Amino acid sequence: MSNAAVNDRLEGLRKLFPGHRLVADAASRAAFESDGLTAFSAKPLGVVIPETTDEVIAAVRWCHDNDVPFVARGSGTSLSGGSLPVADGIVIALNRLNRILNLDPDARTAVVEPGVINIKVSQAAAPHGLYFAPDPSSQTVCTIGGNVAFNSGGAHCLKYGMTSNHVIGIKAVTADGEVVTMGGPSVETIGPDYTGLFCGSEGLFGVALEITLRLLPQPEQFHTVLVGYDSLRAAGDAVSAVIDSGLLPGAMEIMDATSIEAAEAAVQCNYPHDATAVLIVELEGPSERLAFERDQLEQVIAATGPIVRVVAKDDAERLRIWKGRKSVFSAVGRLSPDFLVQDGVVPRKRLGEALVRIEEIGKRSGIRVANVFHAGDGNLHPLIMFDGNQPGQLHRAEEVAAELSRMCIEMGGSITGEHGVGMEKRDFLPQMFDEPTVDMFDRLRRAFDPKLVANPGKMFPGTEAPALSLTGLHPLEKAGVIHRE
Amino acid sequence: MSNAAVNDRLEGLRKLFPGHRLVADAASRAAFESDGLTAFSAKPLGVVIPETTDEVIAAVRWCHDNDVPFVARGSGTSLSGGSLPVADGIVIALNRLNRILNLDPDARTAVVEPGVINIKVSQAAAPHGLYFAPDPSSQTVCTIGGNVAFNSGGAHCLKYGMTSNHVIGIKAVTADGEVVTMGGPSVETIGPDYTGLFCGSEGLFGVALEITLRLLPQPEQFHTVLVGYDSLRAAGDAVSAVIDSGLLPGAMEIMDATSIEAAEAAVQCNYPHDATAVLIVELEGPSERLAFERDQLEQVIAATGPIVRVVAKDDAERLRIWKGRKSVFSAVGRLSPDFLVQDGVVPRKRLGEALVRIEEIGKRSGIRVANVFHAGDGNLHPLIMFDGNQPGQLHRAEEVAAELSRMCIEMGGSITGEHGVGMEKRDFLPQMFDEPTVDMFDRLRRAFDPKLVANPGKMFPGTEAPALSLTGLHPLEKAGVIHRE
Repeated sequence: MSNAAVNDRLEGLRKLFPGHRLVADAASRAAFESDGLTAFSAKPLGVVIPETTDEVIAAVRWCHDNDVPFVARGSGTSLSGGSLPVADGIVIALNRLNRILNLDPDARTAVVEPGVINIKVSQAAAPHGLYFAPDPSSQTVCTIGGNVAFNSGGAHCLKYGMTSNHVIGIKAVTADGEVVTMGGPSVETIGPDYTGLFCGSEGLFGVALEITLRLLPQPEQFHTVLVGYDSLRAAGDAVSAVIDSGLLPGAMEIMDATSIEAAEAAVQCNYPHDATAVLIVELEGPSERLAFERDQLEQVIAATGPIVRVVAKDDAERLRIWKGRKSVFSAVGRLSPDFLVQDGVVPRKRLGEALVRIEEIGKRSGIRVANVFHAGDGNLHPLIMFDGNQPGQLHRAEEVAAELSRMCIEMGGSITGEHGVGMEKRDFLPQMFDEPTVDMFDRLRRAFDPKLVANPGKMFPGTEAPALSLTGLHPLEKAGVIHRE
Repeated sequence: MSNAAVNDRLEGLRKLFPGHRLVADAASRAAFESDGLTAFSAKPLGVVIPETTDEVIAAVRWCHDNDVPFVARGSGTSLSGGSLPVADGIVIALNRLNRILNLDPDARTAVVEPGVINIKVSQAAAPHGLYFAPDPSSQTVCTIGGNVAFNSGGAHCLKYGMTSNHVIGIKAVTADGEVVTMGGPSVETIGPDYTGLFCGSEGLFGVALEITLRLLPQPEQFHTVLVGYDSLRAAGDAVSAVIDSGLLPGAMEIMDATSIEAAEAAVQCNYPHDATAVLIVELEGPSERLAFERDQLEQVIAATGPIVRVVAKDDAERLRIWKGRKSVFSAVGRLSPDFLVQDGVVPRKRLGEALVRIEEIGKRSGIRVANVFHAGDGNLHPLIMFDGNQPGQLHRAEEVAAELSRMCIEMGGSITGEHGVGMEKRDFLPQMFDEPTVDMFDRLRRAFDPKLVANPGKMFPGTEAPALSLTGLHPLEKAGVIHRE
């Protein structure tokens, strides 16, 4: 579209967002053309930067009234292309809506705007001994609005659940411009769980304006153990043994040899060099309770045939163990010029089998795959490594990703554990759900968005996808701010 | 409607449900004309008794195609009139769909039909050391389908949450006859929480055909304490003290003097006679953990000014304590010929204030109100006592109930904690939610039910309510099978 045509189209919107608050020049728009899934890009018509919720409402209503598609976006860390702009649509950038409106230590709740960074909530709650549990690896940069849209998880969602388990109320503007209130300060809701419906709706229902979060008391103490095994399968079996013992760790993570190698090279985390796989188990709670849970864990682990065990003696050692795990996604960048982060779920009992199949798929394609995963809940994150400068490699990597998704479906799992469907996995939706079910999803979506202006082209198959292109690392990743997960 | 007219209307349905499986004579239909909220009644056109899920689907499709309203019903224990028939509509009685289709101890899941009685799930899971956590007081008779429809709670929902926290998948026929599948065996869902949307939809979206439940390991040990106080407010403050200490009991229940008197007369539970209020606190978990949690609780309670403390020494004493609590609803029947069970929520910190106001409201109306409540989550169950044979008393009791609902809204709580909106509270929905929000609820409902044939007249205000009538106790209550909660 020519600059004149763009300006013509945006005339009304410019009255609502004067000056620099509506960005429409080609160079600035280019900064928004991708998100964390950099293989896709699309040029928006313009980017609006509201400073109040009323301005968000005005922007959504303008889009609805003028049949212009829009995407609301926080930090753009989506790894499924969920915050990819719609070509010739509007991006509503929510970064300035970053106020914590209320924090009630007695009620253990916080009311926040959608552009608040995840970690800021825990920082604000810390003086009261509270924190916000969902901890995506990008938590130092991703926003609560994005966490809500994609129902984000993290290493600790084994014990604490996903974002939807920690959101008790949402005030939102629906895609057709109505301002609605779901849930509220009480955990007991009336009728259906509308809040849970909005969480994970990937921006297709509307834009959250105010989000009421549940805060938890900070664990009194942690007990973090790093266990080395001589096979991935042994590590996977250990996970089942821990769960079967009745223990519920805060987190259980597995890394394979390639991931260990990458982490070691990047952050010198001092993991055992002779291990083919490591398992990190973290218990947390009051110190008296930990005293006996620790002993119980020790017995369970001893029976799983570990080749080495390291217990974090203090907070510094605990953080070193986690540093290795959390660095993997960026660290793999040292082993390979490019990589895709996959996200899928298999039943926990079939983890070992899944890992063997992933290895086979990689070998067959001549593509190297590193594995890290939230083992407790069977959530895999294969890292598919390739060189985008070699013709055909990106497409080959995408093929491996697709094959992994099909494997997850076939094994009775899911095509996404925490990254969402977005642009990347939309064609798999009809493989996971039958036609009447997908049709019902679509009918519910149209109840919020009859004109299909809110983030169209995501989650549901249909319109043509933008061509795959390799735009390289996300700017925030290059700066080391984001660690993909 | 005349018998001939009824038969004419039902002709097509009779082909699907021959003989006694379509009940349409006046006497048999009368047995279905009320549910647990006996103040309302309505005569259905007929009652179908499917034996397979295919027959449920056929019944729903027939109703949809012929614009005949229907209500699916399990044991009819709803206390909000949620399973009241629609006049001249069809009742789909699900009691024969009572199969546990699959119980997987490794995955800790059970797949059940909607007519399975709640307690039967725990009984089937017991040999594997597992149980189903939601425990409404009617659990020996109410069905899982009803628990799903009303997102039922129970004494232990403080720790374990409502039914929706324990349902991970639902196969359902929507009101317009489509068979859809929400959620599944994995806790990690894709996109919005459609399962949570269906839970609590009070029969307005469709009928659940197969429900996948999460099972939990049975607690190794219990520690149950009964504490007597000289004021309700002291008992209420003790609840806050326990929560603030970081302990998370399985249950925390309060009973006032009238409830204690009723329970004592009914089941000789041997509660302290000089207490104005009792608080029951139950801890549960592994024995080592309980050992120190018990000490912590002891210290907290000692600081709340109790006048008496009783610790259950064995299982028999524990059951005796619970027997008193669980008998209250039926026991109050000894103090008063009739009573309404109210259900509302106030913020936990305002419990004491709410109790004072309930007392005032009762006094002003000349109506006696007994109080029992799930104190940990601020869920009140005032029992409004009256004599239906005295002219005007039923209406006066309904007025008190309405005033209590208004009080809950005004205090920042909710008009229902676990009984649902149903027929009883539908006029309060617009007092809790603004017009665009209620409109959005309605739009979502129409996505499932464009013709409004599924349980119309419930949850949303609108059509005329059946006249209040006093049909007396529910037949199951008379038999002592149901204890209302």
